[in-house]
Amino acid sequence: MSDTHNTTPTRFIDGGGIKYAYRRFGASSGTPIVFLQHFRGGLDNWDPLVTDGLAKDRPVILFNNAGVASSGGEPANTVADMAKHVLTFINALGLTQVDVLGFSLGGFVAQQLVLESPNLIRRLILAGTGPQGGEGMDAFTPAVAQHATQAIPAVENFLYLFFSPSTPSQAAGRAFWQRRHARADQDVPSSRAAMDAQATAIADWGAVPKFGRYEQLKRIRQPVLVVNGRDDIMVPSVNSFILQQHIPHATLILYPDSGHGAFFQYSDLFTSHARLFLESDATD
Amino acid sequence: MSDTHNTTPTRFIDGGGIKYAYRRFGASSGTPIVFLQHFRGGLDNWDPLVTDGLAKDRPVILFNNAGVASSGGEPANTVADMAKHVLTFINALGLTQVDVLGFSLGGFVAQQLVLESPNLIRRLILAGTGPQGGEGMDAFTPAVAQHATQAIPAVENFLYLFFSPSTPSQAAGRAFWQRRHARADQDVPSSRAAMDAQATAIADWGAVPKFGRYEQLKRIRQPVLVVNGRDDIMVPSVNSFILQQHIPHATLILYPDSGHGAFFQYSDLFTSHARLFLESDATD
Repeated sequence: MSDTHNTTPTRFIDGGGIKYAYRRFGASSGTPIVFLQHFRGGLDNWDPLVTDGLAKDRPVILFNNAGVASSGGEPANTVADMAKHVLTFINALGLTQVDVLGFSLGGFVAQQLVLESPNLIRRLILAGTGPQGGEGMDAFTPAVAQHATQAIPAVENFLYLFFSPSTPSQAAGRAFWQRRHARADQDVPSSRAAMDAQATAIADWGAVPKFGRYEQLKRIRQPVLVVNGRDDIMVPSVNSFILQQHIPHATLILYPDSGHGAFFQYSDLFTSHARLFLESDATD
Repeated sequence: MSDTHNTTPTRFIDGGGIKYAYRRFGASSGTPIVFLQHFRGGLDNWDPLVTDGLAKDRPVILFNNAGVASSGGEPANTVADMAKHVLTFINALGLTQVDVLGFSLGGFVAQQLVLESPNLIRRLILAGTGPQGGEGMDAFTPAVAQHATQAIPAVENFLYLFFSPSTPSQAAGRAFWQRRHARADQDVPSSRAAMDAQATAIADWGAVPKFGRYEQLKRIRQPVLVVNGRDDIMVPSVNSFILQQHIPHATLILYPDSGHGAFFQYSDLFTSHARLFLESDATD
């Protein structure tokens, strides 16, 4: 029996002098899928139902960018530099083609990576994210900023940021919180310096460009699956629609009564959708 | 072996003095799903891959509204009256709960029906459609109007109206056209009077209301699946996003490189998505 989300060891690999932390588990064959994490998140900020669900048919690789949680190096303060670290890491693993799932900030990095290294990426899943200079992405609301920058993020912060206020969504959030803490040896928290560097990168990515808004999305040639909740208060959901309308071959799925963390709220359904996407013909 | 899309006979049932044409096939148990058709379409304007795919797990019922194709009676010229005919028909069949798939005009009728008879409907699929008074729904462009009103609609008209101009989408459209004509005894075409009445209903539904735009969508309590292509030139795709944002429990799926007939272009993938939706828990 192969490793699972909760049993696989944390591994380290050297790339360009940086010791990147990652975990790898699941099937031994198939195109590996690399998970790129949200603001401040480490290796445990994923839903084991999603990662183990996708790992049935392919290797799953969870990754901490430089200076984030257990990874070494200095945290990057631009999305472009974060994408360079991902490329260095994938090269260090000796992989020549991967799928990528990018969540929130990780979705910004995924877009940058696919634009710069198109031959490396087979398919892309963008969750709870948006294009460079998207709608309402230049700043968090004060309430979001407060919840997102707590020294020790608590369940209440995630319930506010990732789920809708409804009873079913909040209950799904608490269930996710249990699953996400089921692993014994949890990753270390990200530093204050990592948070500050990432906040700089997010603000920079969110600024509306003077011209050519959304133009670079047309250069993404891969099949892309865009998913989000109906009411994302961190990256407004309309940005998922905008991504789908501008990327030449993108499918959009928006889930009901949910927010930024919709793919954790609907973990089984999302996993089914993601597997259909990853396994479909190129024209599907 | 049960009937299929191509082998099941056309049946007629009397409701309120009108002889409604329909076809019923598929599994004998499960919540029946009633298909409501687009502008001018009859019993053959569906994709057998979709109807037979869904019929594996439930009865499928295709229906011609009053005065449309082989149905008797006068064609209704309001969406509200069309919904009354659907209700009369479902009552005549003795069904107390159904799922509904409404395509384009059929999606307008499905929304009206669920608002007026909420206890009758379990789940709703809205394909290539939009809300009352949606964006760009008050008139067809001249090119769309020309293709949509030909005396004898030809493959070129459907390729233009239902598919994107790309080579893969046009090829998918031609494959659909073959499938849709595979049945030997095709339904009769709709009359000119039916077209005129439906055009009146569509223009009326598309007019932007003076106040309360989209308000009635909040009263739909059922789980809803909204699907469309990325670039629908008949009912602009943004209306699918609007439906999802205003209906309390709606999932949105937009397919890439496709138009009004996206769920025929991606018939297998759509069938998988629809089955996941129809079979999921109420909170999924």
